[in-house]
Amino acid sequence: VGLVSGGGSGHEPLHAGFVGTGMLDVAVAGAVFASPTALQVLEATKAADSGRGVVQIVKNYTGDVLNFRIAGEISGDDAIETEIVLVDDDLATDLGEEDGPGRRGTAATVIVEKLCGAAAEAGASLAEVAAIGRRAASRARTMSLALSAGTHPGDTEPQFTLEDDEVELGVGIHGERGRGRVPFRDADGLVELLVEPLRKELDLRRGEEVLAIVNGLGGTYPLELQLAARALHHHLADAGISIERSLVGSYVTSLDMHGLSITLMPLDDEQRRLWDAAVRTPALTW
Amino acid sequence: VGLVSGGGSGHEPLHAGFVGTGMLDVAVAGAVFASPTALQVLEATKAADSGRGVVQIVKNYTGDVLNFRIAGEISGDDAIETEIVLVDDDLATDLGEEDGPGRRGTAATVIVEKLCGAAAEAGASLAEVAAIGRRAASRARTMSLALSAGTHPGDTEPQFTLEDDEVELGVGIHGERGRGRVPFRDADGLVELLVEPLRKELDLRRGEEVLAIVNGLGGTYPLELQLAARALHHHLADAGISIERSLVGSYVTSLDMHGLSITLMPLDDEQRRLWDAAVRTPALTW
Repeated sequence: VGLVSGGGSGHEPLHAGFVGTGMLDVAVAGAVFASPTALQVLEATKAADSGRGVVQIVKNYTGDVLNFRIAGEISGDDAIETEIVLVDDDLATDLGEEDGPGRRGTAATVIVEKLCGAAAEAGASLAEVAAIGRRAASRARTMSLALSAGTHPGDTEPQFTLEDDEVELGVGIHGERGRGRVPFRDADGLVELLVEPLRKELDLRRGEEVLAIVNGLGGTYPLELQLAARALHHHLADAGISIERSLVGSYVTSLDMHGLSITLMPLDDEQRRLWDAAVRTPALTW
Repeated sequence: VGLVSGGGSGHEPLHAGFVGTGMLDVAVAGAVFASPTALQVLEATKAADSGRGVVQIVKNYTGDVLNFRIAGEISGDDAIETEIVLVDDDLATDLGEEDGPGRRGTAATVIVEKLCGAAAEAGASLAEVAAIGRRAASRARTMSLALSAGTHPGDTEPQFTLEDDEVELGVGIHGERGRGRVPFRDADGLVELLVEPLRKELDLRRGEEVLAIVNGLGGTYPLELQLAARALHHHLADAGISIERSLVGSYVTSLDMHGLSITLMPLDDEQRRLWDAAVRTPALTW
């Protein structure tokens, strides 16, 4: 089964950095923050196909969803079966609406790409790979914050501005403003602001085992991410929740945004096995 | 043979991120930009020893050199043989003086740690591992630049300030100012400023094969580093020099400094083999 993902640029290493054994077959990139066209996605889908169908992993943004869907329909003309797995993990955009655009797709994309990639590598069918991706997407949620926004190449001003003592909570990965601003606080305090809504939404109980991603949004430096990871570890340990697997680094960025996101997903045995399977890509290798 | 490295904090993932199979046995960290004490280094050296001696990889800064040397001498009391490998790759600080502090140690540390780690893993002797490290250190050179300085935790101002259209050339990893300021130019132009002095110093000729590190200094985002890597590739290809192996990412940082360094080292067969050997650490795995 082939695996293709893509979307606008500016989120590196997503998606091109995750092409390789045990993860994506093809990544298709649009311009900065702009969806690739349906024809580009079609070519990517053809390139990914080896006769057993293609799973398309798509972050939930209108342009991406539209263009991947069109490409999926056209690829049927070439007798390529496709399944779309939609990633919509951003809890800050969960408005509970029936007919809105739904939650945005952010750092959980890495989990979905990894688990689907491992399943495809192990010879799972199109339906099985898609089901694994959908299950991961349904169980992972992300919350993010920023101390400053990113600046679009060529622009002279960042996408929004904050006072020195303000933090934007619930930012997106395209410079979207968040749910609101809160006063600056230390790493423990900031991490708590992200984790508590996640814990409530995912109904994480004492004894639960989770996969966690502490993700830098571009301009965040390694020491900051490590501090946040430590705070996350302490915070969850206090609640009896253990981080069984984790990533700490800049995986899904928003240009040079100075901020971070935390993604949590309760981890079952099959997911742990797929997560642990060998992977060899520029941005993720074990 | 045991392998220990260390120095001030603020350069993450260096050094703790490189502890693991095929690289360091122990990393010892001081406070931000401050050397660990001799006693801390001594404990690290003891922990790294398994009876065949310990290679200490030390970046060339007065405090680090002093404390590692003292620790090396004291560890002789415990019958631990030690060898120091000094890393002094920063070309911007090459003043040609006989009795000055010499060049600073920067991103070539990753190369030295990787090659020594592979040699130690393969069972090389203390003298052999040290010789491999010294040879790598003697052949690798680095040049760096910054668009803005880092800010020390707790400080409100960065370590130096630049105008929007200025670039500091030859910065260190502790907020040291560089050789001078140049007007801002595009990625190709900036990379050329770094590469040409390296090419001259290393006397790189047409047909040469090099190992290259495009290293983010903390606040630099992945897309920028990829652009610089592309520019480096083009620039060297024009000169008939091929990048045989490379790293592109933030490996040796200076808090949130927005800048990058380029490290080049001509690669011989033994070094290629050691570089390619399996490694499994938080920050480097293949």
